[in-house]
Amino acid sequence: MKSRSMFYLHIIIFILLISSCSVPTEYSDPLPSWNEGDTKTSIVNFINNVTNQNSSNYIKVSERIAVFDNDGTLWTEKPIYFQIQFVIDRVKEMAKDHPEWKEKQPYKAVLENDIKTLFSSEKWISELFVVTHTGMTTSEFYKIGHEWLKTAKHPKFNKLLTDMVFQPMLELMEYLRQNEFRTYIVSGGGQTFIRLFAEQVYNVPPEQIIGTLFKTEYRVVDDNPEIYRLPEIFLFDDKGMKPVAIEKFIGLIPTMAFGNSDGDLQMLQYTQSGKGKRFMALVHHTDSTREYSYDRNSHIGQLDKAWDEAIEKKWTLIDMQKDWKVIFPFELKSK
Amino acid sequence: MKSRSMFYLHIIIFILLISSCSVPTEYSDPLPSWNEGDTKTSIVNFINNVTNQNSSNYIKVSERIAVFDNDGTLWTEKPIYFQIQFVIDRVKEMAKDHPEWKEKQPYKAVLENDIKTLFSSEKWISELFVVTHTGMTTSEFYKIGHEWLKTAKHPKFNKLLTDMVFQPMLELMEYLRQNEFRTYIVSGGGQTFIRLFAEQVYNVPPEQIIGTLFKTEYRVVDDNPEIYRLPEIFLFDDKGMKPVAIEKFIGLIPTMAFGNSDGDLQMLQYTQSGKGKRFMALVHHTDSTREYSYDRNSHIGQLDKAWDEAIEKKWTLIDMQKDWKVIFPFELKSK
Repeated sequence: MKSRSMFYLHIIIFILLISSCSVPTEYSDPLPSWNEGDTKTSIVNFINNVTNQNSSNYIKVSERIAVFDNDGTLWTEKPIYFQIQFVIDRVKEMAKDHPEWKEKQPYKAVLENDIKTLFSSEKWISELFVVTHTGMTTSEFYKIGHEWLKTAKHPKFNKLLTDMVFQPMLELMEYLRQNEFRTYIVSGGGQTFIRLFAEQVYNVPPEQIIGTLFKTEYRVVDDNPEIYRLPEIFLFDDKGMKPVAIEKFIGLIPTMAFGNSDGDLQMLQYTQSGKGKRFMALVHHTDSTREYSYDRNSHIGQLDKAWDEAIEKKWTLIDMQKDWKVIFPFELKSK
Repeated sequence: MKSRSMFYLHIIIFILLISSCSVPTEYSDPLPSWNEGDTKTSIVNFINNVTNQNSSNYIKVSERIAVFDNDGTLWTEKPIYFQIQFVIDRVKEMAKDHPEWKEKQPYKAVLENDIKTLFSSEKWISELFVVTHTGMTTSEFYKIGHEWLKTAKHPKFNKLLTDMVFQPMLELMEYLRQNEFRTYIVSGGGQTFIRLFAEQVYNVPPEQIIGTLFKTEYRVVDDNPEIYRLPEIFLFDDKGMKPVAIEKFIGLIPTMAFGNSDGDLQMLQYTQSGKGKRFMALVHHTDSTREYSYDRNSHIGQLDKAWDEAIEKKWTLIDMQKDWKVIFPFELKSK
């Protein structure tokens, strides 16, 4: 009996040792919202390969950088970029203090919901961005933005905009972080705008958000230091400026890059230019039922040159309809 | 005997359990190169306080940011900023291909070691920075810089410039990282210049180096993407631009800030403006024997307004002579 109790004791010790140590947990499927197939396999194989110390393609932790475009890659960008929806809602709100806007373009077009006229001039769009995004401190912008996000809904799905994120991409980012990647967002959208929700929704901290930047200025008002937003673009983080911003903010060539449009082409090229194994992918919007279907001829999120180059260079094309079991997190909850 | 062996077995189990778990290691003294006294005590007390979950001043890990100036805070800045020494050495090297420089200012002054004439014009200094730091890809700059750092020595100490770092600050940065702080460098010096050695010398990765930035451009040459350095300053990371850069690169108000000159004043003010407990400190160069002694009247690293404000606001003043047991790592090695 003594020796049997000793045997059990050893078993217990063994279990205690195992369970009490920080052994990384193995997940049976780190990407449950991805259908089985070439795309999912290529991602998992890549991660297994570059994180395997015995592999010739091993990438050390300090160099594990994954970059993600935001609009159309991590959340929906149709029928208009959500940040433009913010601009429109904000102009309507601000119009209460600007009665003259009723007769003045581009404000008139916004107030009359005349989106076609509004989009007829890039200069007008820029003006509205400046009016709604600058002339205030960063803290003031955050306050306004957070308040807006609480109720801002998608016109087709009637869901909060922050619910319009892609569940498979959330899983992918988490999977990469479990494998000690830093997951950066590199977006043509505004950095401060994305910081409004990125930590809560994507689990990406402010220091890993790269986006379009306005000039800012340090001011001390009543002994209170503030960052004040000026009416001038400092860095427009699109196309060739994405690699430029990556070099300035990260200083390393990414290991993996995910985009969905021609605006991401240079970021993917730059990622591929790094030594060793790299992973480049484009989300192809192919699901007109569950989300939207668009590519070469779309005004927003045009995927044309980058598509050709993806085929030529054998980058991964993520087919939303085929590769994704669910698109949005709310589909999971309603199951 | 049986029960005694069981007793020992339990002791062994207990030790195994303790040693195999990821319990954080306690260090008897995390700052061995700091003399005992108010300065060291204030640092250690601050860290113990803000990392204690039961403290009302607890700061969560995601918000633990410490920012460090570089020149004069992490390494020596006398007799001239080391980056200026790079400029001078580089002009001399490049002069082989520019025979006309012998008679042309500001090159003539450099070639004749006429530092006084050289420093008579800020425009000349800017011109030399542009000539030596731009007109090449980032990779090319790294190649040149790494080669230079292999042999560049300090004129007074005859040590490699990368050995002229402050041992107490290395220990402080490591201590903060052990307490899950991110240690950012926020320097008026060039970001790319600091990235040449920061990972190796300070253990700070490229993505945590903020510094003065040149404009850059994405180019594809022979199907090879490159970041090309343009002859124009994009962000001069000094004084009020330090908080501006911190907001853009980090997006959080730091918990701790370390500087040594008036150029760091705004960074310390901004740090203090955050909610909750913050720690601001200035390194005061008081040791003319072991390093240098200078403050209010120094051309390089002037400490005047920031000193007054430090006294008024009760920021910590680090007295090099009094607070630091050793200054440079090579003092430890020679012991």
